Amino acid sequence: MTDSPAGAAADGEDIPGDPSRPVTIAVIAESAGVSIPTVSKVLNGRSGVSAETRARVEELINRYGYSKPSAANRSNLLELVFRELESMWAVEIIRGVEQVARQHRIGVLVSRFGLHDSTVPAWDDTVARRPRCVLSVAQLSADEREQLRQKGIPFVVFDPTVEMPDDVPFVGATNWSGGRTATRHLVELGHRRIAMIGGPEGVLCCQARMDGYRSAMEAAGLPVDPRHVVRASLSREGGHDAAVSLLALAERPTAVFAANDLQALGVYQAAREADLAIPADLSVVGFDDLPVVAWVDPPMTTVHQPLTEMAVAATELALSLGRGEPAAQTGVEIATTLTVRDSTAPPPA
Amino acid sequence: MTDSPAGAAADGEDIPGDPSRPVTIAVIAESAGVSIPTVSKVLNGRSGVSAETRARVEELINRYGYSKPSAANRSNLLELVFRELESMWAVEIIRGVEQVARQHRIGVLVSRFGLHDSTVPAWDDTVARRPRCVLSVAQLSADEREQLRQKGIPFVVFDPTVEMPDDVPFVGATNWSGGRTATRHLVELGHRRIAMIGGPEGVLCCQARMDGYRSAMEAAGLPVDPRHVVRASLSREGGHDAAVSLLALAERPTAVFAANDLQALGVYQAAREADLAIPADLSVVGFDDLPVVAWVDPPMTTVHQPLTEMAVAATELALSLGRGEPAAQTGVEIATTLTVRDSTAPPPA
Repeated sequence: MTDSPAGAAADGEDIPGDPSRPVTIAVIAESAGVSIPTVSKVLNGRSGVSAETRARVEELINRYGYSKPSAANRSNLLELVFRELESMWAVEIIRGVEQVARQHRIGVLVSRFGLHDSTVPAWDDTVARRPRCVLSVAQLSADEREQLRQKGIPFVVFDPTVEMPDDVPFVGATNWSGGRTATRHLVELGHRRIAMIGGPEGVLCCQARMDGYRSAMEAAGLPVDPRHVVRASLSREGGHDAAVSLLALAERPTAVFAANDLQALGVYQAAREADLAIPADLSVVGFDDLPVVAWVDPPMTTVHQPLTEMAVAATELALSLGRGEPAAQTGVEIATTLTVRDSTAPPPA
Repeated sequence: MTDSPAGAAADGEDIPGDPSRPVTIAVIAESAGVSIPTVSKVLNGRSGVSAETRARVEELINRYGYSKPSAANRSNLLELVFRELESMWAVEIIRGVEQVARQHRIGVLVSRFGLHDSTVPAWDDTVARRPRCVLSVAQLSADEREQLRQKGIPFVVFDPTVEMPDDVPFVGATNWSGGRTATRHLVELGHRRIAMIGGPEGVLCCQARMDGYRSAMEAAGLPVDPRHVVRASLSREGGHDAAVSLLALAERPTAVFAANDLQALGVYQAAREADLAIPADLSVVGFDDLPVVAWVDPPMTTVHQPLTEMAVAATELALSLGRGEPAAQTGVEIATTLTVRDSTAPPPA
């Protein structure tokens, strides 16, 4: 919980001293020595609370002057923030968010604030609008997170690409497991010379995918040839250029695992240029499972990133924080799965 | 203008009789015998209006009890409505809408109401939220349009697929011209046996694309072989099945123009199955220019649908209607352009 100034009432009796920080349900719970769901039950007149506890909680609610966030001071909106609206998968995220929000009769505001157009006051507008909660596909800076906290707007980061403090709620995917599963699939087909095209340095999900690859290679007792591990931008061009160098090696790899599908499409192109057939001469595995990769020739084996499920989980978490409820966990990774199509086969004899 | 009950004050003096219909700026303008921008200038205290006209307009404003929509009774939101959030191009539309709305400091609510989940009260919520305006990618029924009118919420239909009454504001693409340009490109390459895979009956944009095809064939003096014109669903499977039958003809076409890119991808698949090389044995043109078609093998020649520009124009129109301003035009089609890549070439000798 990042937005619960529970510490302000740690002595359990005094009214919190900092009037600029909102009294949340968490403050009441801590003062009463009960769980947040218990306070929630009292506030909502639900059963399952002893008379004694109810009386103590009600007394504290009155003393602290706590009132449930109402339509009057909290908008009925969740704000979904993107840094850029370029990616093909933005729509899958929006679909999952909208689906959950609609069930809660919460509207979904979609906004974007680019890294390079600081003249546009989009972020300030987001903060000023006081949405019930923010779900950010963009990586929020420490300053942006602090602005939200000061306004009492809870937030969840979607698929963080950089390391965040432990108290930042997030929903991601099991990138390490995904990388491990993809590599094991190639190992099980009989490949020994398996190359990896990694993403740029410092991108957390790519690091996890590469560590999964290394882990699977090690588990199979296969040495990783350093020339078989290259980094590239997460684009088709990046994948193409990396593959051109890999395919020119004397000890050419028989399989390539790429850090994302776009890179893997670049490997397809490089293989065509080198007159290598996929999968007969070269197996390729991508990561993401973009809709397009089922339509290319051959349809691509890839690690499915459960974007819609991630969006659903992130929205549930953001809305529950928006209601002042505790999160069962502040961070969660949703499982990836391997989608086997036609770009992988045993290595050439 | 669909939301201006100007007729109610057509006699110029009486206060409109129907209290359920909002008094708009258009009503004031008609009654005063001046243009809507003139009324707007008076309301906003701007210059460029004679003292006499200003007095007459102010008198009417007072008599009608008109007040400018304010933040108190109009939300600062545009609602972007989809029937389904499935399409790969939804994100391009959202991007264009968000870009314009942000400049006007209007938030973009994205919502979806499916045809088949009437248990979900999404549409009622949209109406109840009273957004400043609605931009609908879904085809609004007459009943839905009437609900919006009754609430005084102006709306614009994005890329209508069915015929709408003349007073429904819309933004579309020049589908007929696009179909004509695509076909002319094939004619100019020397093709004579050009087939068309059309969309389903009753889908307006597809009908326009097919009429553009027929028009270009006629202009070139080329007869259209009825067996070379087939209809199919707007999917990869639809395009595949149609192409299989076209490629089995004794008088096989040397070029195929498909009603959308997904169909054209199905033609790619059918050509591979028939061992025909694109473009050496068969030229293919799609329609839409989805991001994916630049990445397939060979990169596809297609008609570029200017989705982002369409979204920008539709948002400008919706926001201007939301301010009670007149639209310069109620309907507009944005020009398509042909993107020539590698799937078209002269016919085999």
